[in-house]
Formats: sequence, structure tokens, C-alpha cells
Amino acid sequence: MTDSVIDLRSDTVTRPTPAMLEAMFQARVGDDVYEEDPTVRALEQEAAARFGLEAGLFCPSGTMTNQIAIKAHTEPLSEVICEQNSHIYLWEVGGIAFHSGASVALLPGNRGRLTAAQVEAAIRPVNVHYPTTSLISLENTHNRGGGSCYALAELEAIAEVARRHQIPLHLDGARIFNALVATGQPAQAYGRLFDTISVCLSKGLGTPVGSVLLGSKQFIQKTKRIRKVMGGGMRQAGYLAAAGLYALEHNVERLADDHRRARQLGTTLAAQSYVAEVLPVETNLVIFRLQDTTPAEQFLARLEQHGIRAASFGPQMIRLVTHLDIDDAMISRVEAVLDAM
Amino acid sequence: MTDSVIDLRSDTVTRPTPAMLEAMFQARVGDDVYEEDPTVRALEQEAAARFGLEAGLFCPSGTMTNQIAIKAHTEPLSEVICEQNSHIYLWEVGGIAFHSGASVALLPGNRGRLTAAQVEAAIRPVNVHYPTTSLISLENTHNRGGGSCYALAELEAIAEVARRHQIPLHLDGARIFNALVATGQPAQAYGRLFDTISVCLSKGLGTPVGSVLLGSKQFIQKTKRIRKVMGGGMRQAGYLAAAGLYALEHNVERLADDHRRARQLGTTLAAQSYVAEVLPVETNLVIFRLQDTTPAEQFLARLEQHGIRAASFGPQMIRLVTHLDIDDAMISRVEAVLDAM
Amino acid sequence: MTDSVIDLRSDTVTRPTPAMLEAMFQARVGDDVYEEDPTVRALEQEAAARFGLEAGLFCPSGTMTNQIAIKAHTEPLSEVICEQNSHIYLWEVGGIAFHSGASVALLPGNRGRLTAAQVEAAIRPVNVHYPTTSLISLENTHNRGGGSCYALAELEAIAEVARRHQIPLHLDGARIFNALVATGQPAQAYGRLFDTISVCLSKGLGTPVGSVLLGSKQFIQKTKRIRKVMGGGMRQAGYLAAAGLYALEHNVERLADDHRRARQLGTTLAAQSYVAEVLPVETNLVIFRLQDTTPAEQFLARLEQHGIRAASFGPQMIRLVTHLDIDDAMISRVEAVLDAM
Amino acid sequence: MTDSVIDLRSDTVTRPTPAMLEAMFQARVGDDVYEEDPTVRALEQEAAARFGLEAGLFCPSGTMTNQIAIKAHTEPLSEVICEQNSHIYLWEVGGIAFHSGASVALLPGNRGRLTAAQVEAAIRPVNVHYPTTSLISLENTHNRGGGSCYALAELEAIAEVARRHQIPLHLDGARIFNALVATGQPAQAYGRLFDTISVCLSKGLGTPVGSVLLGSKQFIQKTKRIRKVMGGGMRQAGYLAAAGLYALEHNVERLADDHRRARQLGTTLAAQSYVAEVLPVETNLVIFRLQDTTPAEQFLARLEQHGIRAASFGPQMIRLVTHLDIDDAMISRVEAVLDAM
Repeated sequence: MTDSVIDLRSDTVTRPTPAMLEAMFQARVGDDVYEEDPTVRALEQEAAARFGLEAGLFCPSGTMTNQIAIKAHTEPLSEVICEQNSHIYLWEVGGIAFHSGASVALLPGNRGRLTAAQVEAAIRPVNVHYPTTSLISLENTHNRGGGSCYALAELEAIAEVARRHQIPLHLDGARIFNALVATGQPAQAYGRLFDTISVCLSKGLGTPVGSVLLGSKQFIQKTKRIRKVMGGGMRQAGYLAAAGLYALEHNVERLADDHRRARQLGTTLAAQSYVAEVLPVETNLVIFRLQDTTPAEQFLARLEQHGIRAASFGPQMIRLVTHLDIDDAMISRVEAVLDAM
Repeated sequence: MTDSVIDLRSDTVTRPTPAMLEAMFQARVGDDVYEEDPTVRALEQEAAARFGLEAGLFCPSGTMTNQIAIKAHTEPLSEVICEQNSHIYLWEVGGIAFHSGASVALLPGNRGRLTAAQVEAAIRPVNVHYPTTSLISLENTHNRGGGSCYALAELEAIAEVARRHQIPLHLDGARIFNALVATGQPAQAYGRLFDTISVCLSKGLGTPVGSVLLGSKQFIQKTKRIRKVMGGGMRQAGYLAAAGLYALEHNVERLADDHRRARQLGTTLAAQSYVAEVLPVETNLVIFRLQDTTPAEQFLARLEQHGIRAASFGPQMIRLVTHLDIDDAMISRVEAVLDAM
Repeated sequence: MTDSVIDLRSDTVTRPTPAMLEAMFQARVGDDVYEEDPTVRALEQEAAARFGLEAGLFCPSGTMTNQIAIKAHTEPLSEVICEQNSHIYLWEVGGIAFHSGASVALLPGNRGRLTAAQVEAAIRPVNVHYPTTSLISLENTHNRGGGSCYALAELEAIAEVARRHQIPLHLDGARIFNALVATGQPAQAYGRLFDTISVCLSKGLGTPVGSVLLGSKQFIQKTKRIRKVMGGGMRQAGYLAAAGLYALEHNVERLADDHRRARQLGTTLAAQSYVAEVLPVETNLVIFRLQDTTPAEQFLARLEQHGIRAASFGPQMIRLVTHLDIDDAMISRVEAVLDAM
Repeated sequence: MTDSVIDLRSDTVTRPTPAMLEAMFQARVGDDVYEEDPTVRALEQEAAARFGLEAGLFCPSGTMTNQIAIKAHTEPLSEVICEQNSHIYLWEVGGIAFHSGASVALLPGNRGRLTAAQVEAAIRPVNVHYPTTSLISLENTHNRGGGSCYALAELEAIAEVARRHQIPLHLDGARIFNALVATGQPAQAYGRLFDTISVCLSKGLGTPVGSVLLGSKQFIQKTKRIRKVMGGGMRQAGYLAAAGLYALEHNVERLADDHRRARQLGTTLAAQSYVAEVLPVETNLVIFRLQDTTPAEQFLARLEQHGIRAASFGPQMIRLVTHLDIDDAMISRVEAVLDAM
């Protein structure tokens, strides 16, 4: 990949800015398996505080924070309610079954978003033939749903169902800051509604590695052995955590720019004859479907020839993602290419 | 439950006839863990021969034969394609995740029946984020689908997809003899299409306990350790197997009577004002939906007062099942009650 | 196997007496998945009452009752303390890891018997690198230990450790009645010491199929879904349970005869020049080691030529088991053969 | 922990030297989940080449590389042969059972080292009651064994057993470079004997985070989905990998200094009246047992008062570890304290 490439495949491809690198370089570190890394500790506390939760657990990936949360909330012979295209089901290698021995109740969402009524109907009654419902897991923004955001009222209604049935509620917040910036919802509201939140630092926030799982002190204490057995216990992880602290301070508000650029791309795409449909652009993801007369593989290959990388996202579906390493000039260049295709 | 009760909840409630009991009583037995029970051996061979497969494994239940087959076909980090209301997913306590650590791809069927196109579209491509598709599992007749039967042509098309992708194909044949009798399809065709078949002996066939898993010699050999770890290795099991041998000889053709009686009930129900919908009756299951003005719990309670037992089958849904212990007189009595409600 | 064979391989090979068979086929039955089989219910209650426990769960095998108990007591990332040659570890296909995802702390016993001090030292301290100790499991009589019996004082000491550390205590009582008859210990004492007991009906008690898991009402309720997912939910299982009820009434005291015959065999073996060692005979198991000059395979083959079957039990080790189908005349015939070898 | 503390608890506590840090922050990086991080690639290839193996997989911890290897080599219902105090069994939270559903055959080693005869005797014969032996795993140097090293001849004999029985052979090489430096054995010999090797970079080699799993191209390909599901798929991991590359070049030979210093500590300890026993010091670990008259907790507390940290390692057992951050002056200071206690 040369530097002239415009990489819109994912917001995971960002590389640290010099200032973030500098922050990493200066980090004070210790052995985090012994709980002695001050920078990891600071990141965990800062992230938890943002959402009004008590404690955090720094992990090498969002798959790990999600799968640890699922494991800690559930037990074998139980079932997780989630959307049928949620990341935890679709793109985490069947980890719910693998790690937790838990079944899944897969609900069809509106661009990934469930309703409280759907969730409540999926809770299994007591019956010797059934697993017990042990967890409700939501995703916001929803990747497969095109970066769609939940309304706070719907989250509150789902949280009310969860509380009434005494079922824990987890949020896959891989792109939660995109949702917060796009909707203006307060982070603190999420800490009140969700038992646990997985927050990714290496997507829109632009750090090289890491996610944080947030929850109560008691819950996070319980997750430490799970992180250990999964191999997520790192030693001087403060170098990575320092990037997270930097990102929380400097890279959140600027997500609005990513969203503006994504909307711009969406508008441009909607005007193209070879595009059959563009999902509403709410945040930094632009998902569109090509006309059947424009084969997706050829389309991607032609973009590649122009130095633009996009992601295949199902039959005739393409995903573009704006992020820290994409500026307005690049967007203009992409629009020109799209117009000329 | 007194003898005057008409129990239409399930075909599992049958009790052996005197002739079947006599056959059980006379059985020659041995220690089947040492593979020395001649009656178990005879049943396994007879059942396999019916379907043109090589070998059989006698187990205490159909849940065990299904779950053993799934375990033997799959490995952790793989995925099973099945219908979203299939018994193996819905009513086996999440066993696919629990025993096999495998994920599920849940497809919406037409009264439980999938198409070859649906199955093929659900096969996961190679990708580090995905489990690998390791098994396709069908159910015929389909319980939740109202005892619906597959057309042989569709099964052949699905089997062709399975072969082309080198994915094994399993049949949950809990009520496979109902399908064979209702459609006139030859059992031998199933042995050619499916790698493994689970056949239940304690539903329509009327034995007290047992199912047989059928497959190749090599496959069945592999399943013996799985049966052992699940606790299905029984000692002098020939007493139970003798009932199965008796049922294969005497209780298959008579399923046509159960089907006739079920159709009769279906017709009667369709004529009632309190019934919103009756699923097409193809075999021995009658599933219907009550009008919202007739609460299901009250309806079941009133049937019970008349000595008739039926099964709740979801919101406002009721299931009636005809079987060996239900005769024409009982059907008339039920019809009279239904007409009078 | 002809009738003239004297089968000393195991007490699992017994076949029901005519009186037991008669009891089986007179049994009143129902659908036990619906908890409607009166004979199963009676057996579960009778077995529980014997040991002063509240409830029972009838299962097709002792492997199932043990594995269900382990699953219900433990959770993944925990550890089971047991003897290194215990049945649950050695002969249940690695089921502790398979079903429960639990680790094992394997202690060397004195002919299979652990001490309270050993058990206490094996309890894992709290540490992020360790599983938590979730279960202590004992075996009495101990199969691999040659049918050895625990002293009640040692069981009480171990139970005290378990209680102090709030760790449940399970008994694999595959041959618990042999221990009770041999030592004169009261069954009620076991119900006070152990949280759960697995009792086998198809060994010394002579029934064709079945074991019962005993525990508190709450615990047994919890196990029903585990039995279901393992495929142990049987329908008209009362035919099998009736044999168990018969055996509890008629076949317990007579175990003393098996023990006397086993001791007789032990004495005869100890006098043979080709025998290097005979483990002390406490119940119905006789385990001995052949001199290196007498290869075990040849020895077993020669016994077989005389119509006597014995079990290989490790390098140069042989096991003989007395049981319901072995009488004094057979013992005399075996002794004559042993003397003449 | 102040800077004046001498931390001998573990070689995991090291912090990067300025030169290593410089190498880290100069690293070229990319998205490693897309296999586009050139520094990660270079480290994987360099580490594999050192041992004469084809490919490598960079992971956040040695627990992850070990557990991934075990998962990839085994399947549920199989068994891993390892030493009873091996790290994979004792300190990885029961991960063998948790991730792989595999049982363990635990052998008593000579300071952690097994013999070929022991290993061969532990291979399970084919029997429906047994798991199948699927992996032999060794540890060199052996942590609990006091940093003991295998003789190459014994490794060759064990590898011959493994090959003859077609069972894969894994090495937990958390401290393999200590073994190579101490014995002068060539790394290439290990690639010929072992199917897979886990190499830790954050112990004696002094990097902040990371281990590499080595094996054939085909095997490493298979492990990528396992790393993904465990949450070990990191994005711009090149910053961490760069430290590993630096360490392979600069920090291997210097392990001889750690070994010299450890021997020095061992000699000093052996001369103390409060020390009952010092395990032979072969590499950088010094394990000793205190006399019963010197309680371990008090001893550790007094060391702490002198700014010296050591690790509790079982009843009355203490472990000291020399490493990159410990120099001769510190050793002298520790010796003075030990002499004065």
C-alpha cells in the first residue's frame, strides 16, 4: 500500500499522528498483569468515568472485550439476544458458542436496531427444552446497518425490559463515540442504561491497538481471569493505553468531520446511475448497493486502479468508511472518480 | 392422568401395546457397552438397512442422536445451517453451542422447509472473521412447520449443494416414517441423500424409549465415544431395542391412520369461528391459531375439563397430535367437544 | 457368549432375574419428559430417602449422573479435585473438560482414597492465573483402588474441609451399596456429608439400565435441563426404573455374598506362584498383578479357554468381579482353573 | 514501585531500554488483521527462521500462543500429555479444558522434565472410555522446575515417540532462549523436533508485550481464526513487534549475564542458615525453600523493607528472577541483605 492510496475499507487502518506517537513514547509503564501499569490504569478510569461506570479493562481488541463480556454475563445452556447482523454474531468467528457455550436468539433489526417489543418477545420462557436468556446485546452505531444510531428513547425502553426480566444489557460500542457525536446523546446516559460497554479505541479514535470494557467494579474484577485465559493479559501495555488517553482527549469531537465527509460521499453515490441504493448515512459508514449491471468485483478493481480502496460487504454491497486519515482533498478525489465511472 | 383422558399433546406419550411388551419381555440381552447385546445390534442393523445406510447407534433419545451427529460432523469454530424453528435449535437446550461449540446460521423456511438456494447462500465464505460451515441439517417432517413434508426434488437439490461444497448433510428424522408414509417416498432415497439420519422410535412408532442414529460404519464408530461421554452407553438395552424392532415391523404402515385422523381434526377446526388459522395438515400434527378473542390458556383449560389434553405452541398457537393410542372414537369425542366450544 | 461362560469382567454384565423382569413389565409408566412416569418418580424418591437426600434424577448411566453433577456444580474456568485414578477422570472420556470446561486437580490416593489434608492442600488460592476450585469428588468403593472403602471418619473430615471452604462435595457411588454392606456404615450418614451422590443400579444391584443422581430439590431441579441437553430425557422409562425399585428391595443385602466370594478368590490367587500381588479384597473387586514371567494376554486367553472371562486392568494387572450371576459353584470352578494354571 | 526497588519477582517486569523504545517508534505499521503490518510480518519471519520453522503468529501473550497451539492441535474428547507443574496446566486458568475441551495427562517430571518412557506410557490406548491423546507439550526452560533445561538427547527421544505415535509435539518456549544460551543447543534443532514452538518476547528478551507462535505455514494459517476468536487480532501491532525484532538482535546473548547473576544468588542463598534447599540454578531462575522457622510471608516482607521484591512460589518456596533490569550492583545489594537477615 503506497502513501497515495485512499483507504476507505475501514476506520481500523488509521496510523497514529506524530502527537499521538509522542504521547505513547512518553508513557509511564509497569507490569499490567501485576496491575502496576499506571497508564493502563489511567485509561481504564478515564474511559469508565466518561460513561459513568465504575471500572474498565484494557484489552487488545474489541472482539476480546465483547467476548469477555458475553462470557462473564452468561453461562453454558443460556442464550444471548442480539440482532441477526450484529458484529458479535456475524464477525467474531462464532465466539458466543465457542467461548461461552451459549445459544443465540437472532432478531431482524431496522438497519441493525431492535425494538423493546422484539427483545421482550425473544426472552425464553422457563422450559426444560430451552436455554435461559442470559444477555441482551446491542450495537451502536450498527456496522452492518450502515452506521445507524439508536434513539435514546428506544435504548431506555430496552433497558427497562432488561431490568424487569433481570437480564444484563451489553453494548458493543465499537463506534459508540460516532453515535454520541452524531446524536448529541450524553455518554453518561449509556452508563445508566447498560451494565457493560465495549469501547473501541482503534477505529474512529485512531489508536493503533486496543479496546476497553466498562462495567461495575465487581464485574470488571470477574473479567480479569477471563482476559487472562484468552491471552489478553499484557505486560507493559501502557504504550498502547497512552494512545487511548490521547485519543479520548483529542479525537472525539473531530468525528463530526468524518460524518460530514461520509454524508458527502453518500450524496455523490446516490446520484450515480450504477448505484441502486445508498443506506441513510448517519455517521462515518457509507453502505451502498450496485446495480446488477455493475459487478462488485469489477467496481472494486477499478477503484483500486485509481488508488481507492473500498470493502466488499455482501453481494453487490460496498462499504466506504471515513476516518482520521481521510481529509477533504481525498474526498474530492474519490468523488471525481465516482462521477467518472 | 386417568385412562379416560385423550392425550393429544404429543406422540411421545404412547404406551406399549401388550404385543410390544411381550416382545420386550422376550428379548435376548447382553452388555451393550461391550457391544454384546444381540437385540440392540439387530435393531441398529435393521434400521440402517431400511434407509440403505451401513450402521446404527441406539440411544436413549432423539436429542441425543441429533446432538451426537452434530458433534461428530462439526468442530468448534464452525457453523450449522438449519431452519430457524428446527428442533435442534429451538428445543434442544442450545445443545449445538453447548456440546459442539458451533454457531448456527438460522434460515426462515416455508413451514420449516428450506430451499437449496437458501442453503447455498448461507454457506460462509473463507474469512478470518467467520466460522466455517460444517453441517447442513434438515428436519422432516418438520414439527414447528406443522408436520410438513419435503418434496424429494428439493432434498435432492439440497444434497447436491452439500456435496458440491463438501458439507455433510444430516436429517432430524424424528418423524421420518410419517413423511415416508404420507408421501410414498422410498426410505432408500434418504440413505443416498443424507450422510446421517436420526430416527425416533418413541413418537409415532410407539416404543417407550429410544432413537437410532444412522450413517456409515466409520461415522458410527466415531460416535461411540461421543455417546459414552454424553452418558448414553447403556448396559442390557436390548429390552428397549426389542420394542423398536417390533415397531419397525408393525407400526409403520398404520401411521396412515394417524394422518387421516389428523386431517379430520384439521377440517373440524377450520370450521370453528374461534379458530383463526389451521396450518395445512400433511401428517399427524395439527397446528392452529386461535382468534385473539379466545385466550389460549382458557381454551386449553376447557379442553382439559373435557378430558382432552393439547399443547401450547406459542402465542395463541395450539398443537394436536394423533398417535397409536388415539382411535376413531376418541377423534369423534374431540370433534364433538370442539364443535360445542 | 454361551451360558456356560463365567463372566467375571464386570458386575455390569448381569441380566435381570425372572422376578426382576416380572416387576419391570408390570410397571405403570408415563411420559417422564413431562414428569408423568409414576415408577420413575417412585424410584427417585426411594433412592433419595435411603440416603436422607431430598430428590433424585433417573438417568441411563452412571457416566451421565456423574457428568451432570459435575456440570451442575461447576462452571467453566473452575477446577475439580479428584483422585488421579478416579472413574470420572480416567474412564469418562475426559468428560469433565468436555462438558464442563473445568480443569482437574488430580491427587494420588491410597488405593483411591484421599485424605482431608490432601484435599485441602489442593484447593486453589485466589489468583488471576488459577481456575477456582468448584468441586471435590470422591469415589466409594474405589474401582481402580480394588473396591476399597473409605472410613467414615475420613469422609467426615473431608466434608468438613468442603464445608469450611464452601465447596460442594460429590460422591461417585457407582458401588456405594458395596461399601455400605461391607462396612456397616449407615446410608443416612452419606446424605449428611455429600451434596450429591451418584448411585448405579446396573452394577451389583443387577438391573439392566440406569443410575440415579441424588441431591437437594433445588439442585435436582437444576439438573433437568442438563439431562435434557445430554439426551438423557427418556419417555416411558418406568420399565427400567421398576428394576431399580426391585433391586433396592431385594439385591442390597446379598452383596455380602459377592464380597465373601471375592475374598475367596483373593485368597486362592495369593497362593499362586504366577501372582505377584493381590490388592486387599474389601468388597466385590479382586485386582491382582501377574509375575512378569506370565504375560497377561496369555493368561486371559487361557482363562477364556476354560470359559472364564476376566478384565485386563493395566500392564500385568487383572480384575475379577463377583456379582449376581456368579454363584459358589462357579467360584469353585474358577478356583480349580486358577490352581491348575 | 519506586526506581530504587530491585524487582526480582519475574523477568516480565522489564521496561524497554531507550534503544528499544526508539526502534518501536520508528516502526512501519499497517493493519495486521488485514495482514498488512510489515514489522509484524518481519518479526514473524525472523523468529520462525531462527528455529528453522516456516511461519509465525504474533500474539499479545505467551498464554495466547500456548492456548492457540493447544486448540489447533487438539479437538474436544482428546487429551494433552504434559508435566504436572507445567505452565499450560498450572497458570493458564485451566485453559486447556476451557478453550479446547481437552483432558490432561499430568506426569511428574524431574524438575519439570519428562522422559520419553514416561510420555510413551501416558499415551491412551484406543478404548470407548478414553479420550484420544492428541498432543504432547513440553516446557523448556521449566519455570516451576527452577529454570531447568532439557538435554537435547531426551528431547530427541520424546520427539521420536511423538512421531511414532503420530502425535504432535509442542514446546512452551517462554524461556527457550535461556535454555539455548545456557546449554549451547542450536535453535535449529528445536524446529526439527517440535511441530510448534511458543516463544515469549517479554520475559528475558525484555520487550513490553508479545509472544510468537511458530510452526508450518499450514498450521499458522489455521491458527489465525483461533487468534481472532480469542481477541488477539491487533491492528497496528508493528510498534510492539519492532521491540521483538530489536530484542532478537540485541538481547539474546546477554542472557548469559542473567544466568551468571542467578548462580551467584543461588550460592549466596545456599550458605544461609534460614534456607533449607536451593534448586540447582541452570538459568535465570532461583527457587529456594525456607526453613520452617522462617515464615515465608515475614521473609518477603523484610526483603520488601529493603526495597527487594521476590515472589512467593508455594509453601515456604521463594523465587528470584534475574533479568535485563538487574545489574551486578543490584545483585551485590541483594546479597548483602540476604547475608544480614
